[in-house]
Amino acid sequence: MDRDNILLTPGPLTTTLRTKLSMLRDWGSWDSEFNAVTARLRQSLLAIVHGQDSHVVVPLQGSGTFSVEAAVATVVPRHGHVLVLDNGAYCKRAARLTQMMGRRCTVVAFADSEPVSASVLEQHLQSDPSVTHVVMIHCETGAGVLNPLHDVAQVCERHGKGLIVDAMSSFGALPIDARTVRFDALIAASGKCLEGVPGMGFVFLRKAIVDACAGNSQSLAMDLHDQYVYMEKTGQWRFTPPTHVVVALAEAVSQFEAEGGQSARLARYTDNYQTLTRGMAALGFKPFLDPSVQAPIIVTFHAPGDPRYDFRQFYAAAKARGFILYPGKLTELETFRVGCIGAIGRNEIEQAVHAVALALQDLGIASGRPREFA
Amino acid sequence: MDRDNILLTPGPLTTTLRTKLSMLRDWGSWDSEFNAVTARLRQSLLAIVHGQDSHVVVPLQGSGTFSVEAAVATVVPRHGHVLVLDNGAYCKRAARLTQMMGRRCTVVAFADSEPVSASVLEQHLQSDPSVTHVVMIHCETGAGVLNPLHDVAQVCERHGKGLIVDAMSSFGALPIDARTVRFDALIAASGKCLEGVPGMGFVFLRKAIVDACAGNSQSLAMDLHDQYVYMEKTGQWRFTPPTHVVVALAEAVSQFEAEGGQSARLARYTDNYQTLTRGMAALGFKPFLDPSVQAPIIVTFHAPGDPRYDFRQFYAAAKARGFILYPGKLTELETFRVGCIGAIGRNEIEQAVHAVALALQDLGIASGRPREFA
Repeated sequence: MDRDNILLTPGPLTTTLRTKLSMLRDWGSWDSEFNAVTARLRQSLLAIVHGQDSHVVVPLQGSGTFSVEAAVATVVPRHGHVLVLDNGAYCKRAARLTQMMGRRCTVVAFADSEPVSASVLEQHLQSDPSVTHVVMIHCETGAGVLNPLHDVAQVCERHGKGLIVDAMSSFGALPIDARTVRFDALIAASGKCLEGVPGMGFVFLRKAIVDACAGNSQSLAMDLHDQYVYMEKTGQWRFTPPTHVVVALAEAVSQFEAEGGQSARLARYTDNYQTLTRGMAALGFKPFLDPSVQAPIIVTFHAPGDPRYDFRQFYAAAKARGFILYPGKLTELETFRVGCIGAIGRNEIEQAVHAVALALQDLGIASGRPREFA
Repeated sequence: MDRDNILLTPGPLTTTLRTKLSMLRDWGSWDSEFNAVTARLRQSLLAIVHGQDSHVVVPLQGSGTFSVEAAVATVVPRHGHVLVLDNGAYCKRAARLTQMMGRRCTVVAFADSEPVSASVLEQHLQSDPSVTHVVMIHCETGAGVLNPLHDVAQVCERHGKGLIVDAMSSFGALPIDARTVRFDALIAASGKCLEGVPGMGFVFLRKAIVDACAGNSQSLAMDLHDQYVYMEKTGQWRFTPPTHVVVALAEAVSQFEAEGGQSARLARYTDNYQTLTRGMAALGFKPFLDPSVQAPIIVTFHAPGDPRYDFRQFYAAAKARGFILYPGKLTELETFRVGCIGAIGRNEIEQAVHAVALALQDLGIASGRPREFA
């Protein structure tokens, strides 16, 4: 049957039909109706972090990584010094793009099974006062760890350092309150927990630093200050916006608001997460992370220890039943990931667990129990 | 009535319903089915310029300008020297992004009503051998001028200079043949003459130079060499692709092929152009450009000389009848622009001209005749 697969991935993810239907129209990017969509969307995004008084939000074309690079390029002066708190693949990517653009960069490494540590950060800031900015990832999608945003923000504020937060896979689901957590930049994207389609990111910039960002970026496309100034002046994007993606995100955000906002979304994703881990445990699977550091966004499971296990076959067998799993991103261990996010609820997760059970049967595997736990 | 407006703009433009309907599905960006869409799309794009033997094509997230910046960043070494042939707003943008990224840049200025000159380029290359790359815009959308791609390419080849062509608004409509025109990079985007939705660009890179591009880019997001190597190895995009935009472009390209490819598209747009200029002439309007240098893509008209003319009112009156016009982009003269491209034909253009006639009536203007021609 030609039915849509359910995406158990960290984005692109399953969106509602209503969100996709909003793309059945063409918009003039210069037209006032489209400008109104952009303006309403920006207001809604600010409200999600309670940032109306403290921050502005600047949308940017491209994937979330484009917005991360733009945030670093715009916020960090050419002679700034960035400290990256690294506990996974997306942290390493942030460090790489910082180094490539020529900013001084220090990487502080943590295990990918543990959150980064605010007290370790504090020691580093005490021993090296040349650091100007700290980069952290709120939920490290590589393994799925929730990092301590509040604690890191407090250390940064106490030391007068700028904080850049990649909140790509947490934004809209986990609470972020700009009134109590100080950040210079916070980045997210359309195709994650807001359940839009991929194609744009957005960056919250602290009002107090916006003017000082002028001239920092050595990339025209990535210059969020320029994008911001132009948008404030004209209501338009500097360069052609992905109109259909923007409209789909606006539609997805209105559904987000109707659902009850961040707390309702977190409740649904938490239920998805619990349903998933309970069901997978019954099949013998073991999550990679300790539940105390696990965000209810994406779960890394150890691969089954059975020698008949092969990820490609396992993936294909689950897909044949309508569910798209996600490969692992750890270098040391064989794992796979299952997303809890998107326009899905308990029904879909229960069906997904059942599809995994049948996929194991296909491969002749009696249990998902990993080698490490044999 | 809630009918879709017709976009007479240089993109985003009017797309077919079939193209938009292709976005009613969510795709896993890691999945083999989506990788197959990307692979087929890349083959089709290469075939449009007959570049299968000589070039590779690298898609990139973001607007067309992102791909222009990426092409310069990837192709031009850090100590390269770029000469920009400037006859309009998009040329100036290309020069600006080149300067911002720290590449040496020389701008050779031409009038925005005239094509750039291959012989003037030749003189410059003779007098300054330090130039390594030449940037030109095939069709300068600022005014709508067609620039002499073939002649400029010959001069570049004769002098051993790399040529970077922004073919944003010409690609798919005007003939470009990589077998007879040598270019190092040629850039276009989804939401132009291929009639997809906006959100991605793509860059053709000459195979002979691809390896030497490694390490040129100081931007991770803009590094087309890295994007290319990763895509060749995995079949995937490095960072989250705008899946719905990609699928819509693939669908639009299959309609392009079914229509008869570039020559059929050019025939339709030429008919749109002739219908438009004939109809507008009958209303007294005068085009800004001499027909001999006008591409059948977007036409700049002088504003009517009547003192009752006001662009915003004129725009609103045409929009009330279902047609979205486009503002002028010339600094010296008051003009407006009308696009000939998108999923529209003679019927829509005839109706658009009629809407313009009624808009003039609304404003109490007897003729579109400009002041300069009174």
